Amino acid sequence: MWDRLLIDCSVATMESRPGDPLGIMTNAAIGIQDGKIVRIGKRTELAGFRAAEVVPLDGAWVTPGLIDCHTHLVFGGTRADEHAMRRAGASYEDIARAGGGIASTVAKTRAASATDLISSGRRRLHALMAGGVTTVEIKSGYGLDTASEMRLLNAAKALGKSEPVLVVGTLLALHALPPEFADRRDDYVAMVVDEMIPAIAKAGLATSVDAYCDTIAFTPPEVERLFRAAAAYGLRVKLHAEQLSNQSGAALAAQYRALSADHLEYLDAAGARAMAEAGTVAVLLPGAFYALQESRKPPVQLLRDHGVRIAVATDCNPGTSPLLSPILAMNMACTLFGLTPEEALAGMTINAAHALGLEKDIGSIAPGKAADLAVWRLESLAELGYWIGLPGPERRIFGGLDA
Amino acid sequence: MWDRLLIDCSVATMESRPGDPLGIMTNAAIGIQDGKIVRIGKRTELAGFRAAEVVPLDGAWVTPGLIDCHTHLVFGGTRADEHAMRRAGASYEDIARAGGGIASTVAKTRAASATDLISSGRRRLHALMAGGVTTVEIKSGYGLDTASEMRLLNAAKALGKSEPVLVVGTLLALHALPPEFADRRDDYVAMVVDEMIPAIAKAGLATSVDAYCDTIAFTPPEVERLFRAAAAYGLRVKLHAEQLSNQSGAALAAQYRALSADHLEYLDAAGARAMAEAGTVAVLLPGAFYALQESRKPPVQLLRDHGVRIAVATDCNPGTSPLLSPILAMNMACTLFGLTPEEALAGMTINAAHALGLEKDIGSIAPGKAADLAVWRLESLAELGYWIGLPGPERRIFGGLDA
Repeated sequence: MWDRLLIDCSVATMESRPGDPLGIMTNAAIGIQDGKIVRIGKRTELAGFRAAEVVPLDGAWVTPGLIDCHTHLVFGGTRADEHAMRRAGASYEDIARAGGGIASTVAKTRAASATDLISSGRRRLHALMAGGVTTVEIKSGYGLDTASEMRLLNAAKALGKSEPVLVVGTLLALHALPPEFADRRDDYVAMVVDEMIPAIAKAGLATSVDAYCDTIAFTPPEVERLFRAAAAYGLRVKLHAEQLSNQSGAALAAQYRALSADHLEYLDAAGARAMAEAGTVAVLLPGAFYALQESRKPPVQLLRDHGVRIAVATDCNPGTSPLLSPILAMNMACTLFGLTPEEALAGMTINAAHALGLEKDIGSIAPGKAADLAVWRLESLAELGYWIGLPGPERRIFGGLDA
Repeated sequence: MWDRLLIDCSVATMESRPGDPLGIMTNAAIGIQDGKIVRIGKRTELAGFRAAEVVPLDGAWVTPGLIDCHTHLVFGGTRADEHAMRRAGASYEDIARAGGGIASTVAKTRAASATDLISSGRRRLHALMAGGVTTVEIKSGYGLDTASEMRLLNAAKALGKSEPVLVVGTLLALHALPPEFADRRDDYVAMVVDEMIPAIAKAGLATSVDAYCDTIAFTPPEVERLFRAAAAYGLRVKLHAEQLSNQSGAALAAQYRALSADHLEYLDAAGARAMAEAGTVAVLLPGAFYALQESRKPPVQLLRDHGVRIAVATDCNPGTSPLLSPILAMNMACTLFGLTPEEALAGMTINAAHALGLEKDIGSIAPGKAADLAVWRLESLAELGYWIGLPGPERRIFGGLDA
């Protein structure tokens, strides 16, 4: 006797087969027990099974719950004022002089109480969940000292406890140079390596470590120092790479078996090849491309040619991607980057699971995986890439339970 | 004794004052009676008034309900398949050969039952309403024969009856040439002028007549013929103008005292001047610009310089702007076209009211106007232009009542 049996639905299992990238099953049924999927099959095949609750879905589409594998969801304040200043003609320099940019978010984050960080983060998390997100990665990176980074990751953890969504914490140690280390880059990296990573690892607040590798951020040697320290503490790595210039960050990430390299507008063939060999997922972030009104697009065909897994995420953050809708991230991946709707959906399900190292637990509808599901009242799943600003799924199921 | 008194809020009345484009009032209160605003003032000023219900808003922002003054909301089918084909590499020609484009929507619309048109339109309308829309303009234009256009406008009217939103019907008579008139342009225009406009006017199904003036659509002389007929039947006019090329459509529209000229990417100074003199509103449609990935932006500074009122709308339609979120339309107007958040909000409130000729009834928070309101849980209204994919307001009030 199962807990629930979902019937009368079409399912995109995301267990791809040749010629069927979504692993479609029509006239399907899904058996759920103890928060997990126990069986997925044709309704007729599951006719002999009984469940405490039979849930007729009236012909709806079912997909795995969406996975947002790259966000900076927890931060203090907003940067709506800067956004408005830019529209009124202010340059980035003007804004920086007015104390703007990431420095302003760092200041507001350090000044915010834990309660404020959690409650403002929760509002954004609710928006993502309303859009169908059942797993979200949350990076730190606006604290830039050990205590503040721990506070951010603790806030992320608290959200994971209070909400039904699965929260995956990432230490974004090298995000920006904090003001107190303005002329002491090496000292900051040393502090991260010697103090911050050990503290976070000991507290179990993150499963991976991230950095921002670009001319305006951190250099490949600094990133490598970080990656070595992460490995020493058993943490996986990932990297903001090739967003504004080509620093060969993707290849460096691949060398350290990174879970993902993210952004990738300036990725070259060598980087793509290295990622393919290492199984490093390419996480595309069209929200930042849109908000910054960039022109250089990530080389999607190159990624396809090399067989690199492509994920899509909101990059939700206060400065360069205040994006609160995973469905809009999929539409933007199609409209701005030319992904097919199937690729976009894989990018927020199974491939995003790979980007978090959780592909055994989530990201597709298969026996043994979490019963994290989204139920869509659509004629075709291609509509997920087509509508702009589509509200969320009709029904969202977390660990087998409606929320 | 009023029906309701909203208290503990900040209000953007949209009754602009010098240096205060939003007409901000803090510590405000709003009195509502019989669906209308009877009084707006400081809480202290309204202390002596009583109401059957006092509604504390806990410091939220209140704006007029949003007005979406340009949509093609009612149609048969979707064009998600074409969207997917384009991402998979198909050209517009490929799609046309496969029976795609507007012709496919005309065929699906003609084949759809009235019930289907209403129920699919209602799903989209609910998305707009969730985003804060309290008034929506709905154009016909996918029927292209008198009976089918009437069916579309009747569907729009039915939505206005079943939902609390105010629906304004527009006859988009010259949208595309229907297949049965493929080689008989003049005959089609004659049929519209001699048969369709009189029938729609007699049935009272539209208050204005619209056309699409461009090289791929209708010529200025054809549009002029339409405008003369509309005037003869007491209907106002508006025009899809200067979207893909400069046909001097805006000046033509202004000559006929059009309510609005819409799109305007190729507008020139003469057109802007004519619009300013005639009081014709410029309706900007960033959703189409985004979905088509156009590069030519409407001349916003030119519009400002000439003092043309600027409105913003979703253009919700199945082909070039499947946009379901008014808030995202505001963000796109800021991000893609460089409007300030204040201009974007005016564009979906008071200026959109002008674009519908309803500025005496809706679009701002002032005594005598409809109590159509949106209540936002935001720190600053600049956030309406800042967040990408923000869900709708916390509370939506239609004619004084929560919905």
